[in-house]
Amino acid sequence: MQSTQNTFIAAPPKQLVLPDGFRFLHGQTIAPFSITYETFGTLNADRSNAILVCHALSASAHAAGKYTDADDERPGWWDGLIGYGKGIDLDRFFVVCANIVGSCFGTTAPSSIDPATGTPYGSRYPWPTIEDMVHAQKALLDHLGITRLRAVAGGSLGGMQVLMWCALYPEMMDAIITMATGAAVPVQGIAWHIIGRKIIESDTHFGGGDYYDNPEPLRGLQVARMVGHMTYLSAQALQTKFARRRRGNTRQFEIDSYFEYQGKKFAALYDANSYIRVQAAMDEMDLAEQYETLEQAFAKWRGESLLVSFDTDWLFPVSEVESVEKAMRANGTPVTHERISSPNGHDTFLIDYDLITPSVRAFLR
Amino acid sequence: MQSTQNTFIAAPPKQLVLPDGFRFLHGQTIAPFSITYETFGTLNADRSNAILVCHALSASAHAAGKYTDADDERPGWWDGLIGYGKGIDLDRFFVVCANIVGSCFGTTAPSSIDPATGTPYGSRYPWPTIEDMVHAQKALLDHLGITRLRAVAGGSLGGMQVLMWCALYPEMMDAIITMATGAAVPVQGIAWHIIGRKIIESDTHFGGGDYYDNPEPLRGLQVARMVGHMTYLSAQALQTKFARRRRGNTRQFEIDSYFEYQGKKFAALYDANSYIRVQAAMDEMDLAEQYETLEQAFAKWRGESLLVSFDTDWLFPVSEVESVEKAMRANGTPVTHERISSPNGHDTFLIDYDLITPSVRAFLR
Repeated sequence: MQSTQNTFIAAPPKQLVLPDGFRFLHGQTIAPFSITYETFGTLNADRSNAILVCHALSASAHAAGKYTDADDERPGWWDGLIGYGKGIDLDRFFVVCANIVGSCFGTTAPSSIDPATGTPYGSRYPWPTIEDMVHAQKALLDHLGITRLRAVAGGSLGGMQVLMWCALYPEMMDAIITMATGAAVPVQGIAWHIIGRKIIESDTHFGGGDYYDNPEPLRGLQVARMVGHMTYLSAQALQTKFARRRRGNTRQFEIDSYFEYQGKKFAALYDANSYIRVQAAMDEMDLAEQYETLEQAFAKWRGESLLVSFDTDWLFPVSEVESVEKAMRANGTPVTHERISSPNGHDTFLIDYDLITPSVRAFLR
Repeated sequence: MQSTQNTFIAAPPKQLVLPDGFRFLHGQTIAPFSITYETFGTLNADRSNAILVCHALSASAHAAGKYTDADDERPGWWDGLIGYGKGIDLDRFFVVCANIVGSCFGTTAPSSIDPATGTPYGSRYPWPTIEDMVHAQKALLDHLGITRLRAVAGGSLGGMQVLMWCALYPEMMDAIITMATGAAVPVQGIAWHIIGRKIIESDTHFGGGDYYDNPEPLRGLQVARMVGHMTYLSAQALQTKFARRRRGNTRQFEIDSYFEYQGKKFAALYDANSYIRVQAAMDEMDLAEQYETLEQAFAKWRGESLLVSFDTDWLFPVSEVESVEKAMRANGTPVTHERISSPNGHDTFLIDYDLITPSVRAFLR
């Protein structure tokens, strides 16, 4: 692999097509169903060096590297952690990342064309669960002939998938790495998510989810994204980056201008039906409710866990990570809880690679 | 006055009509202009026992008491603090509260009929400032023949008015009482307010502010209120009151049902044009920016200050109150900063009367 600006050239995304379709937890089947994925590094001869990486709300299968060596191209979403010589070292590990069920970056999504009608699934697309995301990842690993993983890793919604892996397929991996996540979204986060969905659903152009004939971008999605974005930022980071500063000589607050830019950029790339579905899947997951207690959810998980929390993360506060830690300790499994201090809130796992890399490197040694 | 269920029967609201109109800080005049106000208790012979109370975003001139003794009628918004024998004791003090400029509870508002056109002012109504609110209160006191106040008191936006009183009319009062407020809204609060305004303004029924022909309630206002409501609640209170509980046998989260109820109730009573204007006024105020430093903003203020902060208030964190305290101390004026611990967040000043009353009572002794 060619090295470019401290990253590498990644292979293009691949697709696994399930001709008989994918059956969602709530009973519906979409057939055929495609899972878009990428792999990084080399699978060793005994297929024992694979790490599954699970992505968060707005990301994709493109976890690391660049497709070309163009200067203006951004590398994969976890490029700071995954690479040759990096925390998840591609000299040692083979990394797999699949676009999650419900997301709109290659895996069959609400915006995909239903071959039966020739129009997008839209409102007819099922409401996926975190279990669905994990089951699709498992189907992909089966297809790749990987029967055991060195680790499963992810942050935020990605970390929720990792914890669901512990509940559903506890014998599949030696270790897990989670960051900025928990076994359920606390009520404050749920409330923000619900408000975001209401903003989208009350946009008259949304049309109940069947808006694909309308060329206008959905304003509701732009504004809902601003709500989501807020939950990723700490008060401290907002103060440092924006404070009450105005834009140029205008009276517009810089934070307003920034959110308009980010909201529009996001809504141009992301699909509203995917947004409300993936976020709702996040809200619905609650391992303690599903298995009666967190201890029982992790009852069959015997591997090693690295749980990373961030002191300014208010979407998944440190106390949520402590609940997971406590349950795993009660079950007698080895847990490392790294409490990291950073002003960057929930998004620390996508920003402060100097802070998260040492723990990951030591854990995977 | 007749006592009823630990409160009293309040006199009906009164109106001061300014036939020549009210001139807003930004230059526009609305004429005639009415200020709706209420008074509680009795002005003493030398007119020295008056306390001006300033209300917050969603409140009105009805600060205390009930209009009738009906069981189902709710008393005024600060009835827990203002009353006979209460923290602001009507046996001693005469309390004045005016509906603020921009608000829709009796004072000439965007929803008021413009006599020149016979239609509501709507989008033509000026964008008021906190200075406008204070100037209108001053005009009312002049009308009432009150040349000196025992105190000015308020919480949240009401407290911002109080601090503006210290800057504009520092010789008018002996003392101030503020709760859950600061000399500017920190950026996190501004960001939520901006998002709320975007939600309202992107409701297609809003029509740029001229929506009064439309009988439908504005969904945008309902959802914007949910955003605002969130900033008043602490994570702790959300967890205690709602957690991840579902409504009855449904999958709807209780917090969702609660917000739908509260959002609809609010939007049925409050006007969207007032909401965006009053909240924007709050965001625009910044005494440190306006006077270069907070010390200079309070340079002429020589009275006593009681500043009350709440540990779980994340709209106006304790550190904001400390900035005000520090500036007043630097100016050599007497300040008491009461740090109160309560799970009830920003709204503590409207909830925990047992916690706030002792400080107020001692301060006014």
